[in-house]
Amino acid sequence: MSPLKTFLDLVKATDNYPLVDIPRLPYAPDRSASLYQLFLPNDPRPHGFILPSVVDRMPWTSDFSISHSIPRTVQLRDASDGADTAAACNAAFKKVIDAAGEAQVFANLQRVWPEDYKVLGARCSGGSRVQLLRAAAGLFGISCRGAHMTVYTYTAAGELKIWVPRRSREMMTWPGKLDTTVAGGVRAEESPFECIVHEADEEASLPGALVRKHTKPVGVITYVAESAAGSGGELGLCVPDVLYCYDLEVGQDVIPKPQDNEVEGFYLMSVDQVKESLLREEFKTNCASVMIDFFIRHGVITDDNEPDYLDIVTRLHRPLPVPTTPF
Amino acid sequence: MSPLKTFLDLVKATDNYPLVDIPRLPYAPDRSASLYQLFLPNDPRPHGFILPSVVDRMPWTSDFSISHSIPRTVQLRDASDGADTAAACNAAFKKVIDAAGEAQVFANLQRVWPEDYKVLGARCSGGSRVQLLRAAAGLFGISCRGAHMTVYTYTAAGELKIWVPRRSREMMTWPGKLDTTVAGGVRAEESPFECIVHEADEEASLPGALVRKHTKPVGVITYVAESAAGSGGELGLCVPDVLYCYDLEVGQDVIPKPQDNEVEGFYLMSVDQVKESLLREEFKTNCASVMIDFFIRHGVITDDNEPDYLDIVTRLHRPLPVPTTPF
Repeated sequence: MSPLKTFLDLVKATDNYPLVDIPRLPYAPDRSASLYQLFLPNDPRPHGFILPSVVDRMPWTSDFSISHSIPRTVQLRDASDGADTAAACNAAFKKVIDAAGEAQVFANLQRVWPEDYKVLGARCSGGSRVQLLRAAAGLFGISCRGAHMTVYTYTAAGELKIWVPRRSREMMTWPGKLDTTVAGGVRAEESPFECIVHEADEEASLPGALVRKHTKPVGVITYVAESAAGSGGELGLCVPDVLYCYDLEVGQDVIPKPQDNEVEGFYLMSVDQVKESLLREEFKTNCASVMIDFFIRHGVITDDNEPDYLDIVTRLHRPLPVPTTPF
Repeated sequence: MSPLKTFLDLVKATDNYPLVDIPRLPYAPDRSASLYQLFLPNDPRPHGFILPSVVDRMPWTSDFSISHSIPRTVQLRDASDGADTAAACNAAFKKVIDAAGEAQVFANLQRVWPEDYKVLGARCSGGSRVQLLRAAAGLFGISCRGAHMTVYTYTAAGELKIWVPRRSREMMTWPGKLDTTVAGGVRAEESPFECIVHEADEEASLPGALVRKHTKPVGVITYVAESAAGSGGELGLCVPDVLYCYDLEVGQDVIPKPQDNEVEGFYLMSVDQVKESLLREEFKTNCASVMIDFFIRHGVITDDNEPDYLDIVTRLHRPLPVPTTPF
């Protein structure tokens, strides 16, 4: 990859799915460009967009009906027999994903994270959650939730400094890259804030009481990623992502320490050090966007010093192609 | 208007231009739906979208060539003779706007603000600014810049309180509505921050030294407004808007005071009072969005207490249909 030169380049590297009208792609007359829409029972809104090459290889069960004509669709049937639709959906997803895992059809499907992601905005009878295996979320093109917390402090001289971890060189994804202080995927059954509380303990040894009392929710960034080699899975998937952002200002006595094997170490970096590391592409791609959003909100990157200011802020909040609320 | 019930309703009332693909509208086969694209010399990107009813009535000079076939365009010719293209553009805009004003073709064209707005992202030889009369910006559909600063304080008990002004009942636009603490349109020749500095003095009697030292740039909100009766001008215009947002935390000894005739008075309101006033539609429409963005960034509105959290944050940052940088 050629060296990136601007903050906008970094934001675009995260939000790297082509700026096309994704919900219209299944209607494109050109078959090769046409994604399949994923429909849940009794909901006219597509909840995901699936690559033709994934549809071709997925060992679909009778829970799903596939239409190959334009617009192309994958419809999850209502198999609930009047009971809990969500439970029926979840069982259907599990069955087909298990079958794909056993058949080893897709890269890395069973290898990582035995946890589920929630299908955002699913509208099911009874209000239950629709969820599927985290490692399969990209295959179905549903939106994925992450939570990122930036921990920072002010020196006695009033200088802003940021706690930046370096990922372990042993990690399967993004080894050795700089990361957000605390970050993780949000499990189906938890809120983004609950995710931050346990990740702050696991990744940075930050006490739960401190985190619960002083963490400030400060917004979200949204983007659509096209999965690439670094993700370790299938290529070219359409992955709508939501990162819930949190700030935690701490005193100089609070020092994050690695606890699990995901972090090599934490470094207290100045704003200039972080900026230089960003522009040298030392940060994990989406963590660069989180850091840039932090710099926007804290008045470090401003309209007076950044010609792409407007483009950066709007691009950090790309409208998602899938619904995020039930109604 | 029926009572609004949610924060998302308020954000949608600001970003109220239909969620259509505006840059594609000039290519729509349906003539009635088709806006005219505004092109500057030597720049293939449309800088504004003009209503057919405006094109019909505008007393176009020979500086402009109009194409009524699909895609419909208004092309500003390069009349610079090799000199400063921007100066030629500015003269051409002034000539046609003056003629429209004299002919009294449009509502309120000459009545208000003898100041110019900048055409964001205009790419002209010599790097000069392209600008036109603020009151005509909506007619040409160029993006408009505003700057809004929220001034707040913490009580001795640690409670967040916000300084909220009520607009004078004599104002032509939005009389008697609640407003952002300090706000104004950004003149062509100034930066958003410079706008805040002089508006803070004019509207709230806040000392320049205080404002320059402690004001924090915290981002922008973007939206596309369809002009309605409240704006006092033509109806149905497509107006892309950018509001640069600033926060100013002050001590309890700092008390904003009206200086010009635009503000009736300032009130130190609690978060709950502001929320109630928002939901009762007591705020000027776009100021409600600024306040909601403030609440997002300060952890008042969160994913845990607001079901529309994601939709609110993305909708506060609508991608604009016009370029905002020169290249």
